[in-house]
Amino acid sequence: MAVKTIEFRDNAVYLLDQTRLPRDVVVLELRRAEEVVEAITSLRIRGAPAIGVAGAYALVLASLQADASDVARFMASLWEAARSIGQARPTAVNLQWALQRLLRVSEGASTPEEARRRLLEEARKIQREDEEADRLIGVHGAPLIPQGGVVLTHCNTGALATAGQGTAFGILRTAWQQGRLRHVYATETRPVMQGSRLTAWELVQEGIPASLIVDSAAGTLMAQGKVDCVIVGADRIAANGDVANKIGTYTLAVLAREHGIPFYVAAPISSVDLSVASGEAIPIEERPAWEVTYLGGQAIAPEGIGVYNPAFDVTPHRLVTAIVTERGVVLPPFEEGLR
Amino acid sequence: MAVKTIEFRDNAVYLLDQTRLPRDVVVLELRRAEEVVEAITSLRIRGAPAIGVAGAYALVLASLQADASDVARFMASLWEAARSIGQARPTAVNLQWALQRLLRVSEGASTPEEARRRLLEEARKIQREDEEADRLIGVHGAPLIPQGGVVLTHCNTGALATAGQGTAFGILRTAWQQGRLRHVYATETRPVMQGSRLTAWELVQEGIPASLIVDSAAGTLMAQGKVDCVIVGADRIAANGDVANKIGTYTLAVLAREHGIPFYVAAPISSVDLSVASGEAIPIEERPAWEVTYLGGQAIAPEGIGVYNPAFDVTPHRLVTAIVTERGVVLPPFEEGLR
Repeated sequence: MAVKTIEFRDNAVYLLDQTRLPRDVVVLELRRAEEVVEAITSLRIRGAPAIGVAGAYALVLASLQADASDVARFMASLWEAARSIGQARPTAVNLQWALQRLLRVSEGASTPEEARRRLLEEARKIQREDEEADRLIGVHGAPLIPQGGVVLTHCNTGALATAGQGTAFGILRTAWQQGRLRHVYATETRPVMQGSRLTAWELVQEGIPASLIVDSAAGTLMAQGKVDCVIVGADRIAANGDVANKIGTYTLAVLAREHGIPFYVAAPISSVDLSVASGEAIPIEERPAWEVTYLGGQAIAPEGIGVYNPAFDVTPHRLVTAIVTERGVVLPPFEEGLR
Repeated sequence: MAVKTIEFRDNAVYLLDQTRLPRDVVVLELRRAEEVVEAITSLRIRGAPAIGVAGAYALVLASLQADASDVARFMASLWEAARSIGQARPTAVNLQWALQRLLRVSEGASTPEEARRRLLEEARKIQREDEEADRLIGVHGAPLIPQGGVVLTHCNTGALATAGQGTAFGILRTAWQQGRLRHVYATETRPVMQGSRLTAWELVQEGIPASLIVDSAAGTLMAQGKVDCVIVGADRIAANGDVANKIGTYTLAVLAREHGIPFYVAAPISSVDLSVASGEAIPIEERPAWEVTYLGGQAIAPEGIGVYNPAFDVTPHRLVTAIVTERGVVLPPFEEGLR
C-alpha cells in the first residue's frame, strides 16, 4: 500500500491529514493525546477501524504524558484519558473496543514503564490484526462479485479508513487483482465528500476503472441495470445484524432491495457490538451544520436556514444480503452467525 | 413575490443570475437571444416553467435582431433561432412548448413588425399564464398536506423556477399561508445545490421553518417518521404519468413508497408531453463532469476519475401518488387524467 494512514514511531503518531486530500498530502506529527483526539473529531483520520487504531495510539501518547511517579495516579490518569479519547466520536464502536483492549493489558502491569510498554505493544497488535483482517475480508468477499462485475460503493472504506487495504474497498482491490472487477461507481458522499476526495483518490492510484456519482444518482444507476452489487463498510454492527454506517447507506440498501441487487456489508469483527441488540440502540452522531452549509470556506446556503446533519444511519438487517468479516461471509439469520 | 426571476421591458430580458445566489443578487440585462441561451445552458435561469418563459423571450429578442427587410428571410431566421434556442436544454419540455406557441402565432403575421408584436404578446401571455397556473397548483395542492404537516421537497420549484410562486414550492407557500404547514425538509440537491442555494433562500425569505439535509439523508429521515409527504416538481411528464425531474427524484419516490409516504408531483400542464408514451422516451441531459468534481472553483476529486452526471432521472408512474396541475389533482391511472 502506498498510503500510510497512521504510524507510530519515536513516541509520536504520524497521520495523513485526510481533510487535505486529494489536493495536498500532508503528514501530521502528533505527540499529545489531545492532538489525536482533535484529529479524530475533525475527521483528519476517519473510518471505524482507523479510528480504533488512532484511539489506541492516543492512549499510548497519554501514557507517555502521564505522571509516572505514582502507580495509582498513573493508572487513574490512563482511565481518565481513555474516557476522554472515547468521546471523540460516538458511532464507530472500534474506538471503545480498542481502548478497552489497551486498558485491559495495562491492568496487569506492575510499573508505569511496563504499562507503557504493554500499551504500545497492544496498539501495534491492533494495527497488525486490522491489516490482516482486511486481507481476509478481501479473500472472503471477492468471490461475491460476479466475473466482470460492476460494484457501487459508498463513503471511503479503503486504506485510508483502516490499517490495511480496506474493508469494502479491500474487497474491490482483491477482486481487481483477481480480474473479476470491471467498474466501480463511487458515491461522492456528502457532506464530507469521502467518496470524491478519498475513494476516488484510491481508485485512481489503484488504476481501477471508476466513476463518481452524486449520492442521489444511485437510484437511476440501479434502475438502468448498471450495478451488480453494492458493497459498503460499517461503523457498528448490532447483534441482530443491523448496520450503522455513513449517512446514505440505508437509502442505498432500500434501492438495492427495490432492484433485486445484493447488498453486502464488509467490516472487521471489531465493528460488531454484541452488547447492542439492534440498530435502535446505536448512538448516531450529529455533525455541525457548517458541513452542509459551507463549501471550501464559503457559505452556500443563506443565513437562518436550519440543518439536520446526522453523520450515520441504520440499515435494518432485513436489507443486508451478507456481512463479510475476516472469519468469513455471514448470512442471515445474522444473530447466530455474528455470535 | 419579492423575487423577479425574469422580466421583459425596453427590448431587453432582465433575469436574476441564479448561479450567484444566495450570496449575490445580480440582475442581468440581456439584449441578444444568444445571451439568453447561454443563461439557460449555464443555469443562470433554470426550472422547467422559467426555462419556457426565458426561451420565449429569447425568441422575441431574436425577432428584434432579425433582418426585417424581407418577410421570408425574417421568418426563416425566426425558425433558425427557435431551433437553436430549443437546444439549450433537452429535458424540460416547456422550452419546446413555448417556442412552438410563439412560432404558431407568428405564422399569421403579414409583416415582420406584426410578427414581433405577436411574439412579445404571446411570450407575455405565457408568463402570465404560468403565474396563474402556479396560483391554482397551490390552491389544489395545499389540501394534500395534512394539518401541521411536514413536507420533504427536492431541488428548487419556487418563484425562481417559474413565473409565479412556484409549483411544488407554491403548494408549500399556499399551505403555509393557510397555517397547515409545520416544517419543510429541503434536500441540498447536488451537484448544483438548488436546494441549499435557492430553495433555502426562498424558505428563509418566506419565514417557513425548514431544515436542509444532504440528499442521502432522506432515507433515515423517512425511517424516523419525520416526513408526512414528499412534493416535487417535474421537467417533463409522459402520457402515462412517468415523471422526469431533477436527479434524485426517483430515489425519493422509492423511499417514499418503502415508508408508505405519499409522493406528489406538481407541474403546470405545459410540462405534460402527451407525445411521449413513457419516461423511457424522455431525453435525459448529462451535464459536465466539473459540476461534480469542482466546488467553488476548486477541485475536490483527483485527476483521472470518471464521472457520471445525469441531471435528471425518471420516476415511473406507479410510484406517483398524484399529479397536481392548475386544472386539479390527477390520480392514477394518469393516462386518462392527463389527457
